[in-house]
Amino acid sequence: MLDRTIAAIAPADVAAAQAARDLHLRLTKPPGSLGALEELSARLAGLAGTCPPPQPTPGAVAVFAGDHGVHAQGVTPWPQEVTAQMVANFLAGGAVVNAFARQGGASVTVVDVGVGCDLAPADGLLIRKVRAGTRDFTGGPALTRDEARQALTVGVDVANQLIDEGAKTLLTGDMGIANTTPAAALISVFTGADPAEVTGRGTGIDDLTHAHKVTVVRQALSRHQVSADDPIGALAAVGGLEHAAIAGYVLGAAARRVPVLLDGVIAASAALVAAALAPAAVAAMVAGHRSAEPGATVALAHLGLHPLVDLGLRLGEGTGALLALPIVACAVRVLHEVATFDAAGVSEK
Amino acid sequence: MLDRTIAAIAPADVAAAQAARDLHLRLTKPPGSLGALEELSARLAGLAGTCPPPQPTPGAVAVFAGDHGVHAQGVTPWPQEVTAQMVANFLAGGAVVNAFARQGGASVTVVDVGVGCDLAPADGLLIRKVRAGTRDFTGGPALTRDEARQALTVGVDVANQLIDEGAKTLLTGDMGIANTTPAAALISVFTGADPAEVTGRGTGIDDLTHAHKVTVVRQALSRHQVSADDPIGALAAVGGLEHAAIAGYVLGAAARRVPVLLDGVIAASAALVAAALAPAAVAAMVAGHRSAEPGATVALAHLGLHPLVDLGLRLGEGTGALLALPIVACAVRVLHEVATFDAAGVSEK
Repeated sequence: MLDRTIAAIAPADVAAAQAARDLHLRLTKPPGSLGALEELSARLAGLAGTCPPPQPTPGAVAVFAGDHGVHAQGVTPWPQEVTAQMVANFLAGGAVVNAFARQGGASVTVVDVGVGCDLAPADGLLIRKVRAGTRDFTGGPALTRDEARQALTVGVDVANQLIDEGAKTLLTGDMGIANTTPAAALISVFTGADPAEVTGRGTGIDDLTHAHKVTVVRQALSRHQVSADDPIGALAAVGGLEHAAIAGYVLGAAARRVPVLLDGVIAASAALVAAALAPAAVAAMVAGHRSAEPGATVALAHLGLHPLVDLGLRLGEGTGALLALPIVACAVRVLHEVATFDAAGVSEK
Repeated sequence: MLDRTIAAIAPADVAAAQAARDLHLRLTKPPGSLGALEELSARLAGLAGTCPPPQPTPGAVAVFAGDHGVHAQGVTPWPQEVTAQMVANFLAGGAVVNAFARQGGASVTVVDVGVGCDLAPADGLLIRKVRAGTRDFTGGPALTRDEARQALTVGVDVANQLIDEGAKTLLTGDMGIANTTPAAALISVFTGADPAEVTGRGTGIDDLTHAHKVTVVRQALSRHQVSADDPIGALAAVGGLEHAAIAGYVLGAAARRVPVLLDGVIAASAALVAAALAPAAVAAMVAGHRSAEPGATVALAHLGLHPLVDLGLRLGEGTGALLALPIVACAVRVLHEVATFDAAGVSEK
């Protein structure tokens, strides 16, 4: 399934993208006056292979939840049980991702790909647990290669399911106490940046904990000797189950030529994995926002993506991606709805 | 009417703003993890005088349209009749502001406060023409003081009408070929910045036209000797009818304690006028986006406002404000809808 998905990812349609750029010049506005929205709409036309591209709503958020063995190393002050408690909060509609999704008319699906405890079945919850949390990667690989592939496949499956149910844009979401630590490790592997540059303060840690977190990442990378040339090996060694699933979700979206709005640093690290497995998948990616986590900026720059929103968020869950969805919808609407100079009888300069 | 409106503008309620900051600490998310949205929601609570503040939707855009005598100086390659042609485009629903407003569920009202030709009555058009375009301010004042006050009053009236009709947020919009020239002049007057720092390329002009535009602004400021201590005198000397009306619209919103989302450089210049007339009006202002026009950044910094969207737009019409409205709505929703740690049974760090 994973290999078939990767094989199905084709390059963007350059003619459709160019058609969007050409159309922009005929619409009733000064050329270039919509700034980054013009190229965004052209990228979406290229992805869809048609100009104008389809409207990107409704969107669907998948919040992939997992726990992390490296939590035992004291990289965060939050207890691990918060992952499962927040899953319950998502399912009850009480988290920020739910509030933002209601604003934007998006659905929220929670995917247990690796929460540390058993979760009761519930509406809006897909139980696709690969294992109950990763192993502590300071002592050995976080996952086996087979577990990493299973988690990738969960992401592909969820992407296909949400698209089959009518989603026009997929939004990434994540929940996993300690999950910025594997994200930093992955970003360091795939961009070559030093762990100190890409390891942030996550939910908010003090200087001492931050320095320790950098050391944990650095020692893990040194121990496992992972390489960007072996993306599944890197995921297995220092990744997380939600990181792997999001990488698969991105690949699933790309294979279906559906845009995928990346949330924060977890999504950015997963997007690097997806791009390493299938470089053409980048055409499906839209960077929702610039997380306050430094690794997100390094990862997005490596992917050549420019975030749409930059407001200092560092929450995850899919919140930053949801803020960007109406902006994407506006960019696409322009190509569908704005009159040309000729049609509107407006003089040109 | 104008004086009564100014007198009605009261400072923000610091207790309500603090209540929002305190509530944020109890909601199920790491403290500060919503970045700029947290302080935005606190400002809106302070404006409303209650926490949580009312939902900011539906929004209403008023597009104030006017022409400019300084157009005769060759500050733009676009013919003046484009102002009226674009008004027709707005009324037909074919402009970018219409597409963005449909996405966000906002209304669009066009206000003829000074278009150079007569416009036929139409649904969605308020004809409140103070005069058919300003005078060329390189030869004398653009407006009389009385005309400037009349245009301010038009803005107050429109604000009250839209709020009475149910708008929960007012969004500024503008249309007026050559109107970035008076905007630059006003920004220079109220911030003290040199004309070269605040005069931009508007809809897109070449180096030669840009240099000429800077000279036009510099000579006008030198000729009229206007001062920030006399805001109505400054508006009359080097302003525009839509700039004056937007300043009044901002004051009208502030007097009703309704947030006003500023669009681009025209709105920013008008907001400086409003703040000079009533400093407490700043509490009602939310900067929708950072226009590519350099004067907008200078003006927003002077007002202490941080734009929500920064995507290089330079279109006006209200488009940048409309992109920001869903973000404002998300910020407010958090205070209404997100569960507390206690209520959700989520552990704290």
